[in-house]
Amino acid sequence: MTDLTPSQLRQRIRSGEHTGNTSGFCPGYVQTNMVILPKDWAADFLQFCQKNPKPCPVLGISEAGSWEIPELATDLDIRSDIPSYKIFENGVVTNEVNDITEFWRDDLVTFMLGCSFSFEEPLIQSGLEVRNVTENCNVPMYRTTIDCNTAGRFSGTMVVSMRPFLPADSIRAIQICTRFPSVHGAPVHLGDPSLIGIKDINSPEFGDPVTINENELPVFWACGVTPQVALEQAKPPFCITHSPGCMLVTDIKNSSLSIM
Amino acid sequence: MTDLTPSQLRQRIRSGEHTGNTSGFCPGYVQTNMVILPKDWAADFLQFCQKNPKPCPVLGISEAGSWEIPELATDLDIRSDIPSYKIFENGVVTNEVNDITEFWRDDLVTFMLGCSFSFEEPLIQSGLEVRNVTENCNVPMYRTTIDCNTAGRFSGTMVVSMRPFLPADSIRAIQICTRFPSVHGAPVHLGDPSLIGIKDINSPEFGDPVTINENELPVFWACGVTPQVALEQAKPPFCITHSPGCMLVTDIKNSSLSIM
Repeated sequence: MTDLTPSQLRQRIRSGEHTGNTSGFCPGYVQTNMVILPKDWAADFLQFCQKNPKPCPVLGISEAGSWEIPELATDLDIRSDIPSYKIFENGVVTNEVNDITEFWRDDLVTFMLGCSFSFEEPLIQSGLEVRNVTENCNVPMYRTTIDCNTAGRFSGTMVVSMRPFLPADSIRAIQICTRFPSVHGAPVHLGDPSLIGIKDINSPEFGDPVTINENELPVFWACGVTPQVALEQAKPPFCITHSPGCMLVTDIKNSSLSIM
Repeated sequence: MTDLTPSQLRQRIRSGEHTGNTSGFCPGYVQTNMVILPKDWAADFLQFCQKNPKPCPVLGISEAGSWEIPELATDLDIRSDIPSYKIFENGVVTNEVNDITEFWRDDLVTFMLGCSFSFEEPLIQSGLEVRNVTENCNVPMYRTTIDCNTAGRFSGTMVVSMRPFLPADSIRAIQICTRFPSVHGAPVHLGDPSLIGIKDINSPEFGDPVTINENELPVFWACGVTPQVALEQAKPPFCITHSPGCMLVTDIKNSSLSIM
């Protein structure tokens, strides 16, 4: 199953043969977070992303009403090529479905946002141990006191993901992730969690806790859950996102996102 | 005085008008550490530098017997253009002089090594506070338990310099210094000093202690004192170095050392 090309995997998802998460599929290819908003909310959201590029790195945007983003994936049908969708009304989840064709509207604009899978791959290829991968669980994610820049109706605080490293490895991880600004880029914090408002490192608000070994520093990255929290606060009348872990698998390679 | 070009400053040093340290002179221009060894020791030392590029970044090497390194400075006379020289015999300082013309030998090879002045400049230009600059003192330097790679008769442990930063600023400092591999490059450690064998952060073995404010992390760079320690251990029969702070001021710009 992991030998599928991104196009083959999207075909299986579209036909309903694959409905689960996309973790581990199509290694080497970029997977993205997705946010779909009515056009009259999209401009504010785009501005929010542009003012907060670390948590909200935009990799692609559709035309209003279009289900295509050809620069990310050929033959893409946004309405059916993601394994699972969450539908929000006024900030509340009202449905979770495998196809949104029946919910489609001519005014919907789709945002595809970079995801940490894309930088975990080069970290591992460099010989670093990514704890959530080793422990085969979700990365731990935390709400922080770091304010996002406000844009129109969108505001909020940053959500971060955490991966522990020995100090020299944390320096190497900063160097590697600096090469990938479109998938969260360099960390935003390391060391004392309380300095960014995290009370208990062993109790993440999202994902799973991971082991932090002696002498390791927790290293924190801006996280793609940040825009979801901003959406919950802004409460647009209608919004669709991917379900956690059920991403768009694109045709572009992680390596193509490296700026050097 | 700080308006002098590097060439004008070297002329003043050569004529004996300037005999003190070079800190603050010719801002923007690379200053270097210097090691002069007999040819039969130079090959081992070059190998030591190549195996330990972070503490010993070679910016220039002379031909045996030559006092010129034209790629670093026009009209250079190594024998007179450094304000103060230390002469070592069998690892012990036997003289400190302002001119080494009378000590010159046809078999001497000169190494010019990168220095942290070159990366402190872009750190400050990026808006970071470099504590030893703010407090107008020498950077604190410490012996560590980090082993250098052995080359021939040269071995030893690494000496590091320390600058404290808030966590987000330490990430920025790592990014900036990564661009300057020929002047010590990215830090080698940050956080807990004891992990690299430093017992008391307030008692540096070289230089001066600096204030570490609440919430700041000590960040450690490989230091150009490392080769001096290796020289003290190897005890070559004859060796000349610059006196601390009395560097070669070159014609090349710090900005030219940035790899991107």
